[in-house]
Amino acid sequence: MNVVILAAGMGKRMQSALPKVLHPLAGKPLLQHVIDTARELAPSKLCVIYGHGGAAVPEMVKLQNNGEHATIDTALQEPQLGTGHAVMQAAPQLDDNAPTLILYGDVPLTTSASLRRLVEAAGSDKLAILTVEQANPFGLGRIVREGGNIVRIVEEKDASEAERAIREINSGIIVAPTRQLKEWLGSLSNNNAQGEYYLTDIVAKAVADGVPVVSAHPSAEWEVAGVNSKVQLAELERRHQLNKANVLLEQGVTLMDPARIDIRGTLVCGRDVTIDVGCVFEGRVELADGVTVGAHNVIVNASIAAGAQIKPFCHIEGAKVGPKSMIGPYARLRPGADLAEDVHIGNFVEVKNSTIAAHSKANHLSYVGDATVGSRVNIGAGTITCNYDGVNKYRTVIEDDAFIGSDSQLVAPVTVGKGATLGAGTTLTKDAPAGKLTISRARQMTIDAWQRPVKIKK
Amino acid sequence: MNVVILAAGMGKRMQSALPKVLHPLAGKPLLQHVIDTARELAPSKLCVIYGHGGAAVPEMVKLQNNGEHATIDTALQEPQLGTGHAVMQAAPQLDDNAPTLILYGDVPLTTSASLRRLVEAAGSDKLAILTVEQANPFGLGRIVREGGNIVRIVEEKDASEAERAIREINSGIIVAPTRQLKEWLGSLSNNNAQGEYYLTDIVAKAVADGVPVVSAHPSAEWEVAGVNSKVQLAELERRHQLNKANVLLEQGVTLMDPARIDIRGTLVCGRDVTIDVGCVFEGRVELADGVTVGAHNVIVNASIAAGAQIKPFCHIEGAKVGPKSMIGPYARLRPGADLAEDVHIGNFVEVKNSTIAAHSKANHLSYVGDATVGSRVNIGAGTITCNYDGVNKYRTVIEDDAFIGSDSQLVAPVTVGKGATLGAGTTLTKDAPAGKLTISRARQMTIDAWQRPVKIKK
Amino acid sequence: MNVVILAAGMGKRMQSALPKVLHPLAGKPLLQHVIDTARELAPSKLCVIYGHGGAAVPEMVKLQNNGEHATIDTALQEPQLGTGHAVMQAAPQLDDNAPTLILYGDVPLTTSASLRRLVEAAGSDKLAILTVEQANPFGLGRIVREGGNIVRIVEEKDASEAERAIREINSGIIVAPTRQLKEWLGSLSNNNAQGEYYLTDIVAKAVADGVPVVSAHPSAEWEVAGVNSKVQLAELERRHQLNKANVLLEQGVTLMDPARIDIRGTLVCGRDVTIDVGCVFEGRVELADGVTVGAHNVIVNASIAAGAQIKPFCHIEGAKVGPKSMIGPYARLRPGADLAEDVHIGNFVEVKNSTIAAHSKANHLSYVGDATVGSRVNIGAGTITCNYDGVNKYRTVIEDDAFIGSDSQLVAPVTVGKGATLGAGTTLTKDAPAGKLTISRARQMTIDAWQRPVKIKK
Repeated sequence: MNVVILAAGMGKRMQSALPKVLHPLAGKPLLQHVIDTARELAPSKLCVIYGHGGAAVPEMVKLQNNGEHATIDTALQEPQLGTGHAVMQAAPQLDDNAPTLILYGDVPLTTSASLRRLVEAAGSDKLAILTVEQANPFGLGRIVREGGNIVRIVEEKDASEAERAIREINSGIIVAPTRQLKEWLGSLSNNNAQGEYYLTDIVAKAVADGVPVVSAHPSAEWEVAGVNSKVQLAELERRHQLNKANVLLEQGVTLMDPARIDIRGTLVCGRDVTIDVGCVFEGRVELADGVTVGAHNVIVNASIAAGAQIKPFCHIEGAKVGPKSMIGPYARLRPGADLAEDVHIGNFVEVKNSTIAAHSKANHLSYVGDATVGSRVNIGAGTITCNYDGVNKYRTVIEDDAFIGSDSQLVAPVTVGKGATLGAGTTLTKDAPAGKLTISRARQMTIDAWQRPVKIKK
Repeated sequence: MNVVILAAGMGKRMQSALPKVLHPLAGKPLLQHVIDTARELAPSKLCVIYGHGGAAVPEMVKLQNNGEHATIDTALQEPQLGTGHAVMQAAPQLDDNAPTLILYGDVPLTTSASLRRLVEAAGSDKLAILTVEQANPFGLGRIVREGGNIVRIVEEKDASEAERAIREINSGIIVAPTRQLKEWLGSLSNNNAQGEYYLTDIVAKAVADGVPVVSAHPSAEWEVAGVNSKVQLAELERRHQLNKANVLLEQGVTLMDPARIDIRGTLVCGRDVTIDVGCVFEGRVELADGVTVGAHNVIVNASIAAGAQIKPFCHIEGAKVGPKSMIGPYARLRPGADLAEDVHIGNFVEVKNSTIAAHSKANHLSYVGDATVGSRVNIGAGTITCNYDGVNKYRTVIEDDAFIGSDSQLVAPVTVGKGATLGAGTTLTKDAPAGKLTISRARQMTIDAWQRPVKIKK
Repeated sequence: MNVVILAAGMGKRMQSALPKVLHPLAGKPLLQHVIDTARELAPSKLCVIYGHGGAAVPEMVKLQNNGEHATIDTALQEPQLGTGHAVMQAAPQLDDNAPTLILYGDVPLTTSASLRRLVEAAGSDKLAILTVEQANPFGLGRIVREGGNIVRIVEEKDASEAERAIREINSGIIVAPTRQLKEWLGSLSNNNAQGEYYLTDIVAKAVADGVPVVSAHPSAEWEVAGVNSKVQLAELERRHQLNKANVLLEQGVTLMDPARIDIRGTLVCGRDVTIDVGCVFEGRVELADGVTVGAHNVIVNASIAAGAQIKPFCHIEGAKVGPKSMIGPYARLRPGADLAEDVHIGNFVEVKNSTIAAHSKANHLSYVGDATVGSRVNIGAGTITCNYDGVNKYRTVIEDDAFIGSDSQLVAPVTVGKGATLGAGTTLTKDAPAGKLTISRARQMTIDAWQRPVKIKK
């Protein structure tokens, strides 16, 4: 099969410097949704027609060509003379021996299941149109049938009263036998008010040629909804998010509010996972069996192992959380945070590029960066790994069973030995030997004669 | 009155290791909602029929038997041969001289008001069915009436076209005269496709026996909605939360968005309380007159006194906040935090198991744990009470009018005397005398010859 | 034109100590919404009728009289004898040569466009009523027309069955020729069940006098919806917020969820601005081109320059953020925080009353208050400006290219010279000279004989 994706439109109503088809829905450009869906059909040819937006669209397409799938071609449509003209730009690249499916870069949520039905309906010799019943069809091309057969598509302005009452509309998504499609495209006329070549006009040509025109239907209106404005983008975003929420619910995930979860990527959940309100997931996130995610968490490209609890207000990105760990509230795990089993990271603690072994804790107001932390370590409140001298970064090593007193600074590179203790407020610049107490502390003294400051008059 | 609660179902569609009736709605197991409602009717006998899920259901029921109410009995249904068979398991425990109300452990939101109407309709000698008009009754047992009287319940598969058009459906909740109920149950047949004994079949028996079959109606469909899947659980959760929000609004509470508040327990509000978006309340929370709760707060088992302000992003659990106190943003109050009047706890400050007297402040980046803080104390930014030596916890005492310099560590047990001042960066290991300045500070010195580090080439 | 705003009602159902018209919608009192809309019509006279709530309403009105617009008069209605009686209180202040528009202090969302249409319909000699079709008109005054002309308004209780079927209702908002209005008001009777003078009765008088009664219509029902309870206040709040969200979407702003943004004031957005879920904006906030605001941010009276990124969970108030700056997550910018280009403020960092020049960073767990920070400064984790001695506040100056080691305390007034470095854990009480390393550090030592504490038995 050939697939052509029309993605040349400017999208003026988006009021953006970004070409319309590159606006993200659920964190992924509209066009990429369409490409991903097209690829599920394993087409032998896939061609994206671009126009507005300079090199942005072909560059984005190029990034898709990573060898895993058939290469996507691009073709420039300039000037832009209508949808029929757009498809013509792809004609040289289409394989005549396979049918051609035409998709739209701004219609992101069509399912591959619907497209498969359409392709099956078309077979090798029919023109198949994805049509849908719409409660309010105003402005859309109506499907006119006689004796059940599609005989033409009539636009709003040309429709009779009876035709305007038709609710079955043309989504624009079609499958056509490629040889004939090329002929039909070649014979399109632009003798209309806009001076454009309309893809829709091939329906009349198919009927004239005696080619059967058939249809298939998507499961819902939103599958064929296009994005022309930020209002429509927001509507489809919410529709898509609700769909994703429903998939999770069907899998047995407990969602405290399906209308208040955002998944921009892939969220893989085990059994008995609970997700509270206001959570945002981006990239690939895995939540293993029994994980609970509290309210208002942001989790990006992370894996959370079985039984871990993520309390409210955490920000986790590029991190691994071990089984039965307790994270938050207000924990920030940055890329390279790799926590083993039963690790506790508490409030106002930041962990970056550090491994923390089992049963260790950093519960309060600390910065753990570029560190290797052993098992059963207790990192006191206000501990800071000084990993940066202004130009270079260094590692801190804290061995098993060490106890780091509150408000200590570990000036890397430095090692705290196994079972060592640091006194509160220590500035550690040299290694702390195992099993012993290390401190750096000035003598406590009281100034008897001291007077409290008084308010300065201004 | 006797109450029987059917709670034996496995709930396979929940896709969970937890028995269905133990899944929480608004933080409380479904079954407990039903038990709590049943208890509002003060039944003399209350029996829960369990089956799947091993000991989890009877153990949960056991926890309800705290002496305050009539003891709940349990009966095991094994094997599970239908709803009629389930009720039979309770038969030995039912008092023949009082009617029996049959409820369902997975139908959590029936109100006691509706059940009272049903009980009244039943009197001592009638069979009463809680019925409801449903917009879409497909799949549900229709109430067939003749001359206004209920003559039978017909299931979807057995219904004529006329019967399928009936919108009044059987909720399954009934009240029956107990002696007759037992007879009817004893004569049920399992001669049907499933080989089960259906409770519904007693309606025909009542009609045959000349026992009047009457009905009462709940105030809304959701009162009789059951939970069979996470989708349905989420729907009822939101319905229940909206109901709770409406009760608060009716009481005069200002909610910035009734669709974005979650109450999992009891929220008691005074006059002129305002709650912003995204707040979650769990357990018992009291907000006194004039309290304002900012956006995105999580408050659990806490009391907030009159005129206190909770700014955004706080996490408060097991704490008391005094009148006119200012909390947050980003304050964490943990169990045992007990704040008096006009206390200020600011950003990135954690308070645990500590009393703080009137007019004291800890506004920035501090950890106050196991401390007794007097009045008018100023706790500087970055102060840490070092309450833990790795095995034991100790208390810190800060007396009235003390001023704790920034970044001090108070190594407990230790006392800061009345009106004492600690210099910035002090590590306090011995008591600081009242009214004086105490410091532990190394001499500041400048290294003239020092060179800034340079980038190491890798 | 004259405008009279009726604002005397008690609003008992609000269950509040605050007079009803002072309850905020989108952060602004209901009455102020009405005043602001009225002022868009540039009335020569504007009079607010108050009653309940003591001095609160006239005091609020007084604050509006800042010289920019025509002064608003107030008139006390006491006792309160109906809407007609209320308007009578304003009579002495109305200019007979201009028509009078009557508005309601608890109907906040009428648009000036609708009112302009109403005023135009009235001309100088007609009575014009703002009427609206309502799906459920129960309880509202129906507009009775004959031959298209309004002939009377009939209240629910007096309506015939045919009249109750009328869906066009009286909003109560009218424009009348002032001389006649005064006459009509003067001749109103209170011969009714409530013993009140009804403004509505002037319609019959106009008809009797042969004055044409005309109408205009708002664009939606919510324009004439009044607030009598917290339920209605919450409904209008959400309606208003959705309206504001739609305006932003139409302008090209990307909103991840239009149902989860709250704007209480004015939000001005440039091109290609993206706002994630759960954000709250108060006062005047400007987001320049290309700004992204992550999930769950609270931003009050702030300006964010082009290309800046606000990550999740920030709290920004009274601050300026420079172009391409990176803020958060969990950054708190307080009033007077003024950040230049490419400044990074990271997690658990509080900035107050401080200027920070270009390319400087404070990424972790710091308090920067009353400071002047130069360019390219690196403020290490846990740095604290000690700006307060308990009674006075002092400034800290950190010059360009300085490097502040972690966990330093800068005891103001103090200056860190250009290119100076502070060692980790420094307590800086005197100025640090430019280009050199300054430290205050006790010698690190290890206690060989030290024994770890053991668990104390209790």
